[in-house]
Amino acid sequence: MRTLRPSVAALLLATITACPCVVHASGTASQESLQPLLNVGDKKLQFDWPMLRIGTGEYAEGPTGVTVFRFGRKVMGAVDVRGGGPGTVNTDFLRLGYNYPDLDTVVFSGGSWYGLEATTAAATALKDDGERGGHWDNVALSVGAIIYDFGDRRLNEIYPDKKLAQAALRAAQPGVFPLGAQGAGRSARSGQFFGCNAHSGQGGAFRQVGPVKIAAFTVVNAFGVVTDRNGHVVACNPGEGWPKPLRPTDLLAGMPDSRKPGWQPSKEAGKNTTVSLVVVNQTLEPALLQRIAVQVHTAMARGIQPFATEYDGDVLYAVSTGELDEKDPGALTSVDLGVIASEVMWDAILSSVPEQPRALQPNKRFKVAAADLAKYQGEYRFSELVSVRISEQAGKLVAQATGARDAFAIKKPAPVELLPVAQGEFMVPGRYPLNLRFADDRLTLNPGHWQQIGAKAAQ
Amino acid sequence: MRTLRPSVAALLLATITACPCVVHASGTASQESLQPLLNVGDKKLQFDWPMLRIGTGEYAEGPTGVTVFRFGRKVMGAVDVRGGGPGTVNTDFLRLGYNYPDLDTVVFSGGSWYGLEATTAAATALKDDGERGGHWDNVALSVGAIIYDFGDRRLNEIYPDKKLAQAALRAAQPGVFPLGAQGAGRSARSGQFFGCNAHSGQGGAFRQVGPVKIAAFTVVNAFGVVTDRNGHVVACNPGEGWPKPLRPTDLLAGMPDSRKPGWQPSKEAGKNTTVSLVVVNQTLEPALLQRIAVQVHTAMARGIQPFATEYDGDVLYAVSTGELDEKDPGALTSVDLGVIASEVMWDAILSSVPEQPRALQPNKRFKVAAADLAKYQGEYRFSELVSVRISEQAGKLVAQATGARDAFAIKKPAPVELLPVAQGEFMVPGRYPLNLRFADDRLTLNPGHWQQIGAKAAQ
Amino acid sequence: MRTLRPSVAALLLATITACPCVVHASGTASQESLQPLLNVGDKKLQFDWPMLRIGTGEYAEGPTGVTVFRFGRKVMGAVDVRGGGPGTVNTDFLRLGYNYPDLDTVVFSGGSWYGLEATTAAATALKDDGERGGHWDNVALSVGAIIYDFGDRRLNEIYPDKKLAQAALRAAQPGVFPLGAQGAGRSARSGQFFGCNAHSGQGGAFRQVGPVKIAAFTVVNAFGVVTDRNGHVVACNPGEGWPKPLRPTDLLAGMPDSRKPGWQPSKEAGKNTTVSLVVVNQTLEPALLQRIAVQVHTAMARGIQPFATEYDGDVLYAVSTGELDEKDPGALTSVDLGVIASEVMWDAILSSVPEQPRALQPNKRFKVAAADLAKYQGEYRFSELVSVRISEQAGKLVAQATGARDAFAIKKPAPVELLPVAQGEFMVPGRYPLNLRFADDRLTLNPGHWQQIGAKAAQ
Amino acid sequence: MRTLRPSVAALLLATITACPCVVHASGTASQESLQPLLNVGDKKLQFDWPMLRIGTGEYAEGPTGVTVFRFGRKVMGAVDVRGGGPGTVNTDFLRLGYNYPDLDTVVFSGGSWYGLEATTAAATALKDDGERGGHWDNVALSVGAIIYDFGDRRLNEIYPDKKLAQAALRAAQPGVFPLGAQGAGRSARSGQFFGCNAHSGQGGAFRQVGPVKIAAFTVVNAFGVVTDRNGHVVACNPGEGWPKPLRPTDLLAGMPDSRKPGWQPSKEAGKNTTVSLVVVNQTLEPALLQRIAVQVHTAMARGIQPFATEYDGDVLYAVSTGELDEKDPGALTSVDLGVIASEVMWDAILSSVPEQPRALQPNKRFKVAAADLAKYQGEYRFSELVSVRISEQAGKLVAQATGARDAFAIKKPAPVELLPVAQGEFMVPGRYPLNLRFADDRLTLNPGHWQQIGAKAAQ
Repeated sequence: MRTLRPSVAALLLATITACPCVVHASGTASQESLQPLLNVGDKKLQFDWPMLRIGTGEYAEGPTGVTVFRFGRKVMGAVDVRGGGPGTVNTDFLRLGYNYPDLDTVVFSGGSWYGLEATTAAATALKDDGERGGHWDNVALSVGAIIYDFGDRRLNEIYPDKKLAQAALRAAQPGVFPLGAQGAGRSARSGQFFGCNAHSGQGGAFRQVGPVKIAAFTVVNAFGVVTDRNGHVVACNPGEGWPKPLRPTDLLAGMPDSRKPGWQPSKEAGKNTTVSLVVVNQTLEPALLQRIAVQVHTAMARGIQPFATEYDGDVLYAVSTGELDEKDPGALTSVDLGVIASEVMWDAILSSVPEQPRALQPNKRFKVAAADLAKYQGEYRFSELVSVRISEQAGKLVAQATGARDAFAIKKPAPVELLPVAQGEFMVPGRYPLNLRFADDRLTLNPGHWQQIGAKAAQ
Repeated sequence: MRTLRPSVAALLLATITACPCVVHASGTASQESLQPLLNVGDKKLQFDWPMLRIGTGEYAEGPTGVTVFRFGRKVMGAVDVRGGGPGTVNTDFLRLGYNYPDLDTVVFSGGSWYGLEATTAAATALKDDGERGGHWDNVALSVGAIIYDFGDRRLNEIYPDKKLAQAALRAAQPGVFPLGAQGAGRSARSGQFFGCNAHSGQGGAFRQVGPVKIAAFTVVNAFGVVTDRNGHVVACNPGEGWPKPLRPTDLLAGMPDSRKPGWQPSKEAGKNTTVSLVVVNQTLEPALLQRIAVQVHTAMARGIQPFATEYDGDVLYAVSTGELDEKDPGALTSVDLGVIASEVMWDAILSSVPEQPRALQPNKRFKVAAADLAKYQGEYRFSELVSVRISEQAGKLVAQATGARDAFAIKKPAPVELLPVAQGEFMVPGRYPLNLRFADDRLTLNPGHWQQIGAKAAQ
Repeated sequence: MRTLRPSVAALLLATITACPCVVHASGTASQESLQPLLNVGDKKLQFDWPMLRIGTGEYAEGPTGVTVFRFGRKVMGAVDVRGGGPGTVNTDFLRLGYNYPDLDTVVFSGGSWYGLEATTAAATALKDDGERGGHWDNVALSVGAIIYDFGDRRLNEIYPDKKLAQAALRAAQPGVFPLGAQGAGRSARSGQFFGCNAHSGQGGAFRQVGPVKIAAFTVVNAFGVVTDRNGHVVACNPGEGWPKPLRPTDLLAGMPDSRKPGWQPSKEAGKNTTVSLVVVNQTLEPALLQRIAVQVHTAMARGIQPFATEYDGDVLYAVSTGELDEKDPGALTSVDLGVIASEVMWDAILSSVPEQPRALQPNKRFKVAAADLAKYQGEYRFSELVSVRISEQAGKLVAQATGARDAFAIKKPAPVELLPVAQGEFMVPGRYPLNLRFADDRLTLNPGHWQQIGAKAAQ
Repeated sequence: MRTLRPSVAALLLATITACPCVVHASGTASQESLQPLLNVGDKKLQFDWPMLRIGTGEYAEGPTGVTVFRFGRKVMGAVDVRGGGPGTVNTDFLRLGYNYPDLDTVVFSGGSWYGLEATTAAATALKDDGERGGHWDNVALSVGAIIYDFGDRRLNEIYPDKKLAQAALRAAQPGVFPLGAQGAGRSARSGQFFGCNAHSGQGGAFRQVGPVKIAAFTVVNAFGVVTDRNGHVVACNPGEGWPKPLRPTDLLAGMPDSRKPGWQPSKEAGKNTTVSLVVVNQTLEPALLQRIAVQVHTAMARGIQPFATEYDGDVLYAVSTGELDEKDPGALTSVDLGVIASEVMWDAILSSVPEQPRALQPNKRFKVAAADLAKYQGEYRFSELVSVRISEQAGKLVAQATGARDAFAIKKPAPVELLPVAQGEFMVPGRYPLNLRFADDRLTLNPGHWQQIGAKAAQ
């Protein structure tokens, strides 16, 4: 478990610079005004497989995004839908199990059901670009699934749309997959079942066994916690007095007695989804490709605990590019293929976890100037749903949410004190500590990779 | 069976005036340039049910279109996928069978898998318009299905897109449903199994039984023929010497010996789909709403013969608006409801058949002026796929397809003679007769409801 | 529609002699005491297909029975479950869609869920006989389905059991299939939705197209009515004043207004099931064999109306024996195969309808001797559920049901008069007329193929 | 991991005495001659839940058996079929998801598909005993699944049959469940994927949370290994030089490089199955009961690794007895219920592992008398498939399989030397060591709980 220890702004800056872009205050953003960021991210999986191209697109203002998998030719696909709240496109065709390749793209997206626009947009882009057409054996088939990245994950409801998905598709490149809170996993979370509310993301892994290529990708937006092969939680905002190391098996095995204070999902935490993709280059008859889908999806219950709950909408696609015949030397049995792919998927799950942000530390000796206090005051709008009023009370700065919803640790019922850290920087302590930065009439919550920017309303 | 007898241009004009719009030559149209036509159509089903609003959008240049069903509140939905080549969105969620209402819209569309963009666009429009949002119990759920209306149905591959679907959603109105070749059924066909290739469309029917409301809608783009309750084919371009009346049961029962010359589907005819919707206002537990879906879908095999073949992608959604409790007086048993809904669906199937166009009759005494012959000559472009070269040969006008594909009766291998009908009007006889009109440097094939317009290329 | 006009005893005798067996009064029968009747029945489908052997077993005391389809080698199978109350064995394995043959037998049976013992018994008989064993590629796979032939169909609850099924399996022979109320269809009914309550049975049909063999079998125990290709009901006990000919489409299309008095299913009529089998000798990839199953099952909605209701438990198996490769000359496209098989299935449905029994006519001039009246009196026991008390009232014979249930037209609440026909023969008129015969201290209800025999209790 | 260290005969004797029965040589046993052993086993789970009665039946000659779960009233059921080779009865009905209770019994059995006779026999026993009948709302519904316990698990192909299942049903008692190699798990194995070939069995666990009762049962006949909450293999015959402790995650994560010599499943190991049952006393709408089934089944991938492979036929039933309303105080959310049930199931998996037998140690100083050598010689028949010839070669005893199959470490190709242990006792060393005992013209292989007895053939 990566604990959330004190830190310096340097790290945050480092993360920020990874995104060389002007980020607008989300409160002023309409879907039309948003600009795609393509294939960004510092940490990347690299692998050699020209048949598979990947593109990610993000709207920093969400943040939210899309991840597009695009194959160099039509491929065979299968699907296993297991979650309690899936959002899907074209799974019914895959289920028919025809023994010929028909699939062009697999698209994962944030934005809950709205994000399915990304999947359909991938198909129409192939059509508009003339890569696919209307002849019956040349119609583009795009399948996809979405994650729920609204709720208390962010302060707006921007979603990945047609523009973003088509840009990502067109930017797709072979051999590179951004890891962590990128693409469809841009605002993913994990561990809400335990109240962990850790930042999560998308993971990928690749293994080559002789001529056999196996890749696994997953967007881990799970109700459960990511668990490593030693049985330890990988990312969590732990409650007070929680055991270290934190082992899901200990907590779960003792349910409900093992339930700790703070270990109760909030009502807002009710929607999650982990969406995944396994790709192999070996041919498999449809029933065995389907078997891979079922087996790998089931095996994910080791790396995410609990898994496949009512509050997860888990979907897994399995694809065979058919580059290697199952009778070729070096081809694997379908059982071995399923077992190895399950492990590659666990690797992918582990690689999805981003570096968690560190809470700023309050500096009791730092004295905020009165002029600054006055300057920071005002109403900051993050979206049509969320606004925050900053005001000065007895020389201290307090914040209160004034819109329809809370703003993280800044709640609607009562103001909370902002503890000074440095010039223009404040924080609110707690299990989910909040960092704040004032600059240029903008208030940035959690400056860095997951920042939310509010613009001061004209008075 | 409506036979295709000689006729006058008056009918065609009448049909044309039904669409008060400037139609551009499709060859010059990009998706971006297309203008939605909303809720057009002469023949309409009218019924009283405020909870259900319907909007259609069409691109005349295709022609192709979309039909959006929008409910006044979240409703319960179920789905039965039965065809050999479906295109669907969000069926997996419906299949979970939760006993609470979640569904907002059902969207049917032309454009094969590309048309699924219409389904996802309905959800995002509800979001963009502020009618639905990102809170977990308020996310818009849109389900849908598409028909294949490419191939030899038309000379271009324009598809219903986000713009069209969102316009149709926003134009949705209660109590009115355009019948025939409108909305998603704009370029539908039926009977390709027998080589009938009849124009088809969308049908709807409504029945009220005491307090129970039952509506059925279907876009009949079927490999089979539409069959009435007397067992007769409703629409077909019959081959020579085919029996009258034409009874599918006679033809099918004698298969394969009953197979007539010309009764062989073309290779291009391989993709079809009938997509349907049943709506009731009575509550039903999920298992019984699913039963309605299965029963009604199965019963459609009487009105469309053959049905549910490998070359159909049939999908049926069943919806309960829940306005009438199943325990209220006058509520029906689920069995009776299923039986009646099956009949209402048969009514809907029958109402889908549009008036078939009539072939112009060649006029042997009509003499085309030499100047006109010269004027008509040239290359007419219908789309990037289809062009037609008109040339004069020994005082007669001939036509030959020069693009990637044939243009109906104008084929690529050899020129076909155009028989004069009247000033600027010609025809090509055959099982699928072709009408032509020259005017203003444009060549219109089959002027009227299904016309295709080619613009003369600059020389 | 075969109406139920007066008749002579000759017919009944003819039917009786078809069963050269001693039938015990069912009231004294335990499952252990029952003797299998194998491959009985007058009317048989004959066809040439050595790979397919069929055996039927019946317990006359039910009557009820089983029909076993046994293949000469392991074959490919698929299944489509569509009804609202199915009983099945091993469908899950078939659904996996492996591309290799594994299936040994398909078993249909009466006896509702109890009859599934017949399916499992077929597998164990193959094991016990040494035809299959425990090696992983040699385990016998038997699939099956049942019909509900209890309720008001007969006066006991005897069911087809292991002994009966194994006897039928071992008696299986090629090329012969008993038609009508035989085997699993021994006590089948049809048309309960309309109150027709016609005797039904099992049907079969065979068609050879070049080298392609197609056979269809079905046990029609349908809530709906069997409908011929002219749209007429084939068998029904019509209510008074019902139209002739009776067309389901007329009745159904006008629902609920078309509902006639007496056209309301009894509560006891709630369980029905049609179970079917399609066999082809041509190889098909699993997805296309599944397509055949779906298409043929759907097409049955023409021959049985209504079909696939909540009160039907319809199941259809599709089998490919793989004797003809799909690439061999003369092999059919899967679409044509599906269409033809659907017609063969309609033929099978029609062949399932047995000759309906005729009601005896009361003979007003026939005078029952006083001694006979005295002799007939007593309590006749048909099973632990049903007994009938015969008594003399004012020179007339009356009957009243005294057990837990009614005995056809002899009800529990009040005695009904028995009208004399001839020596020892009586009848009760009505929509469902009842014939009675007294002989040897036994009371036979509906003497003939569906007779129920009660033994007089010792006084 | 319980290693297989040297031991004394005392343990074996102890195990034997647990079965107070005369065990016949299996070679002379026909199904008809077998005698049920009911509810045997030393180690039992005990719990308080009168609504749930459990009976086990075993044929020691197999050994093989059946486990019957019988509910005190009709209950709601759901099913999740996930394996690559399932054998099931009546799953289709459960899948319809009606919101009323219909299920009577769940039956698990050995005997591969033949063992399904046990499931259907449970229903007919309820009928024969008059507990259920033929009225439409009183027909017994029995569902079930089987495991493959043939192949190299034992030397005969005896299967659980109707007689055994009905005896077990009638012997069912509340509150007791035999753990380990009993009932349906009598000849179960685990870990064949790694070549572990450990003896396995059936496990059960129970947890009460306030008023909520949760029980889990599973017959672990898994291709994968049973894994505890520390990530260690619980039972395995390890290959030479295998790491200790053995962690599946280490082995699997490094696949295929981590594959050790001897860690390759034999071709005979291809069939396995884990069948499971979760029972709760709380009402759940059908969709949520189904969710429990999916979630718990998925979670089992932690306790069995790998899981749900092509060579597993995994099936899980979920049952709600409906004794506690979901709105009652103390009722759990469906999510918590799913999580806790998953843990109870892991407990059940762990409790399934029986004490592994210990190999006898050869005693080099023990000298077998010449008279004994002569006496032991002969042909011992274990079943129609397996015989073993014992002969003397140069003062040593050797054994060779002479039937259709090997007899554990006694193979067909060449004789293997039997190392003396004590009077009448021998052993064959190896990864899967074999113990032998000669007595009374019978040869017992692996004397004890899994013993196989061969009778000497008359000369």
